[in-house]
Amino acid sequence: MRLQQIVDALGGELFGDPHTTVERLSTLSEADSSSLSFLSSARYLEQLSSSRAACVVVAPANREAAMARGACIVSQDPYLYFARLTQWWRQIQEPARTPGVHPSAVVDAEAFIDPSASVGPLSVVEAGARIGPDSRIGARVVVGARCVVGARCIVHPGVVIGADGFGFAPSSEGWVKIEQLGVVRIGNDVEIGANTCIDRGALGDTVIADGVKLDNLIQIGHNVRIGPHTAIAGCVGVAGSAVIGARCTVGGGAVILGHLELAEGVHVSAASVVTRSLLKPGQYTGVYPIEENAAWEKNASTLRQLRSLRDRIRALEARHTEQDPNTP
Amino acid sequence: MRLQQIVDALGGELFGDPHTTVERLSTLSEADSSSLSFLSSARYLEQLSSSRAACVVVAPANREAAMARGACIVSQDPYLYFARLTQWWRQIQEPARTPGVHPSAVVDAEAFIDPSASVGPLSVVEAGARIGPDSRIGARVVVGARCVVGARCIVHPGVVIGADGFGFAPSSEGWVKIEQLGVVRIGNDVEIGANTCIDRGALGDTVIADGVKLDNLIQIGHNVRIGPHTAIAGCVGVAGSAVIGARCTVGGGAVILGHLELAEGVHVSAASVVTRSLLKPGQYTGVYPIEENAAWEKNASTLRQLRSLRDRIRALEARHTEQDPNTP
Amino acid sequence: MRLQQIVDALGGELFGDPHTTVERLSTLSEADSSSLSFLSSARYLEQLSSSRAACVVVAPANREAAMARGACIVSQDPYLYFARLTQWWRQIQEPARTPGVHPSAVVDAEAFIDPSASVGPLSVVEAGARIGPDSRIGARVVVGARCVVGARCIVHPGVVIGADGFGFAPSSEGWVKIEQLGVVRIGNDVEIGANTCIDRGALGDTVIADGVKLDNLIQIGHNVRIGPHTAIAGCVGVAGSAVIGARCTVGGGAVILGHLELAEGVHVSAASVVTRSLLKPGQYTGVYPIEENAAWEKNASTLRQLRSLRDRIRALEARHTEQDPNTP
Repeated sequence: MRLQQIVDALGGELFGDPHTTVERLSTLSEADSSSLSFLSSARYLEQLSSSRAACVVVAPANREAAMARGACIVSQDPYLYFARLTQWWRQIQEPARTPGVHPSAVVDAEAFIDPSASVGPLSVVEAGARIGPDSRIGARVVVGARCVVGARCIVHPGVVIGADGFGFAPSSEGWVKIEQLGVVRIGNDVEIGANTCIDRGALGDTVIADGVKLDNLIQIGHNVRIGPHTAIAGCVGVAGSAVIGARCTVGGGAVILGHLELAEGVHVSAASVVTRSLLKPGQYTGVYPIEENAAWEKNASTLRQLRSLRDRIRALEARHTEQDPNTP
Repeated sequence: MRLQQIVDALGGELFGDPHTTVERLSTLSEADSSSLSFLSSARYLEQLSSSRAACVVVAPANREAAMARGACIVSQDPYLYFARLTQWWRQIQEPARTPGVHPSAVVDAEAFIDPSASVGPLSVVEAGARIGPDSRIGARVVVGARCVVGARCIVHPGVVIGADGFGFAPSSEGWVKIEQLGVVRIGNDVEIGANTCIDRGALGDTVIADGVKLDNLIQIGHNVRIGPHTAIAGCVGVAGSAVIGARCTVGGGAVILGHLELAEGVHVSAASVVTRSLLKPGQYTGVYPIEENAAWEKNASTLRQLRSLRDRIRALEARHTEQDPNTP
Repeated sequence: MRLQQIVDALGGELFGDPHTTVERLSTLSEADSSSLSFLSSARYLEQLSSSRAACVVVAPANREAAMARGACIVSQDPYLYFARLTQWWRQIQEPARTPGVHPSAVVDAEAFIDPSASVGPLSVVEAGARIGPDSRIGARVVVGARCVVGARCIVHPGVVIGADGFGFAPSSEGWVKIEQLGVVRIGNDVEIGANTCIDRGALGDTVIADGVKLDNLIQIGHNVRIGPHTAIAGCVGVAGSAVIGARCTVGGGAVILGHLELAEGVHVSAASVVTRSLLKPGQYTGVYPIEENAAWEKNASTLRQLRSLRDRIRALEARHTEQDPNTP
């Protein structure tokens, strides 16, 4: 690919020989003289000068540093440029996907699959389910009865959409099942990672809004609602009836308890446990800091006495006040 | 459905016009004038008066408040009533499931499937496995060799029963596999959520007792034993050889380490890590409280000094004792 | 099986009647008079004298205690001996696995499966993927396009190798997908547990070295590199571009954040969250200690004031210094 072709297709200002060819996309550190690379974060700035890339996509602020080492493409947002470049690259390199249902998939006669959508091998689409235009259902996916997947969605292998939510009433004979009568409704441009599960609602529905991105091995409980363009990393669990606003991010391994609310623009750090509603945008964290085990043992055992330590500090403060009545 | 039909089928005392018809089951807040709703918790009491439901199932204590707004059905346990109502509703609305093995499933000739059980599309049942009466094995489930599923169980899509437990002996050439020679034995009335895994035992068996309910994406290690009517929420990991008693509950995302014991009636809060046996019934918790990130950073970094803070408090107390010999 | 046959096959020094027969392998506590058992840890020493096993494999140090109760086989490493014994036992008891692709599997014409490898029912192997000699791909596995599995690997049901990594660039219209152009490369003698996911790299590859053991329901993000003989327990999440050294262990439910490094010989305790690189070998832990809920509530709420408690201790210390200028 010549550099000129790239800027013709994707824009950006090219500095360097437009006839230079690149054969692969690489990170700065792994690039060789046939690589096109990019600098998206100041964090990698020191890798720029030593990179062997044929050309680097950079922000205007890094233009001179980039030109000092060779060709560059200047873009307002190198990371976004790079994302579009990967899409363009794939489109050129790979044959276009053909829509349609793989012959090994089990699709109910009463399911509706848009003719432009595809359903991968060994997937199951149950009665009344609907798959929207240009959506790609991967291999070994289940879309349960009456569940809806919008347009341009990507559903990776092993995903289960519309299994029963976890609902039981206690009784003297044990747990009595609450039949899960709702469905899952997934908007447009949603991506769902491998082996993730989204349960159907108990009465109402579980709703995933447009543009949501879910990583692998995520559990979304019944009647959860996730707002537009929220992104959730792997291994997160969202318990039933939680409501997550638009444009939130949730780090990997976090847990969000049921029946609470996250406002638009809430960002939950990885592995944090959300035990109450977070109604103000911002970054929230709750992680026990990792330490060498011996140090952890000392601090963690002391943690069990924390309330009494506080009381001992209070007692010390009170004594001071007694001893020195002039102290404010 | 007329209200009279409902109380004829499920009991409860009806106050209001028995000819009133309802068309759906709804929560109080989502109900419209064709909805039957229920009030199961004082938490939702304030939603009662404003609900537009045609009829509400309530406990005796809430009868007058319910009658003030319209029809009601009084039941000793509205939540249990509601559970039974969902079952009755589904039975009426949906065609009965037909037993049998879906033609796309791969069932070994030496597996035994009770004629009243069903096995969903693209599932695998290996040699010597047994599926009991009226059990429903969903789509894309694996039941491994010689594993046993009891009667009236529900196994959701993607479940893997009887993969190898994680057992290796260290050696100078690396890990040496310990063949997992046991099986998984699952009792009656067990429900297992999507993509949950239950490993076979190493020597003895992994045992899930009657009435256990497991949510999605749970890992049950080899030789774990779970007592009757215990319920475990999503994303929980139970390590090998843990023994969990009857009627326990484990919140979502909790981790239970191996070779320890939970007594009957132990309740583990979501995301808590059980690092020692819990031999007394009760509620147990171990979760780092979530905070705004800036506050967390301050507190978490101080946490690493906790033992030394305790020592400094001790030193202060000692000084007081020195300074004031009369202090007890 | 006669004891003489066992030591002929596996070595060790037999004390007792070589004609004694054993019919099963059992733990010390579950053994009966037809069982062969083993003592691998001082922790179970007290079970030795009361065990009903026909024979026990023990270390030289426990030989006399073992002989006091009956037959024994003495081995330098009873746990490793036991591992080899389970392999030998399975080999004798079960018919040899036949290599080949199950007819229900969907294997692309451009995938390469070594003739000695096996692919289980309802698995999918995409174009350009390679499965090495003697590897066993279980039921319902996906091996994505161009991904490589080495020799003698065991891949359990539900595993997804080579789904897209979680990569998106933010834009004013929402997240823009970064196409994942790399693959997954898995070495030799790797075992991967049920429903585990290993994402393909974004530009470079995700690499799992020889001898790595992964338990169930693990998430391995794009471009992660895991060194030889590292073992990771169930429900762990490893975020993108993390580099884990050789011979590490990671306990169940731990989370390892992205773009950081674990040196060779780092051991992460279960449920700990690795938020920074760990460049020194050792055991690391970060887990909030579990307590009765009432005690937890007191301590956890105090934890939010920890920085201010530290400041109050400082203030108290300062006052002492003022009051007593002679104090060092």
